[in-house]
Amino acid sequence: MKFTAEINVMPQKALLDPQGKTVSANLKNIGLDALTNVRIGKHFTLDVEAADQAAAEALVKEACEKLLINPVMEAFEFEVKGA
Amino acid sequence: MKFTAEINVMPQKALLDPQGKTVSANLKNIGLDALTNVRIGKHFTLDVEAADQAAAEALVKEACEKLLINPVMEAFEFEVKGA
Repeated sequence: MKFTAEINVMPQKALLDPQGKTVSANLKNIGLDALTNVRIGKHFTLDVEAADQAAAEALVKEACEKLLINPVMEAFEFEVKGA
Repeated sequence: MKFTAEINVMPQKALLDPQGKTVSANLKNIGLDALTNVRIGKHFTLDVEAADQAAAEALVKEACEKLLINPVMEAFEFEVKGA
């Protein structure tokens, strides 16, 4: 069966996110000071071929842990849906 | 009222995503060839101070269009939730 996965990878909450801080400052500069506390990470979408939802989720988790994220710096969450 | 927004910014579907292609190839190399068609974009989270949900959504849309995305290269989608 075909599934699609969406993965969000964000800097760990305890870490500074200088890119996010810069965007927060720029939002203020253009008058959008109602928007604060910006944090910036990565978003992955991919297709998964697996027997069932649980197998698809296991594959995506393995990919995150082996390749996509750096667990010291980043946290991830993902969602797998039937395609 | 306080809201939180999650924004996904992805390369336009019509454009090649070389970073995604590289990750797809690497997944195959480590035996995860059930995962294909990887595309990589950015994920933003931020806080919004606004009178109501509609006002918060309007602010987030404005921020995307004025600062966060390049409409020639990227498409965005976002979700605003009560905090």
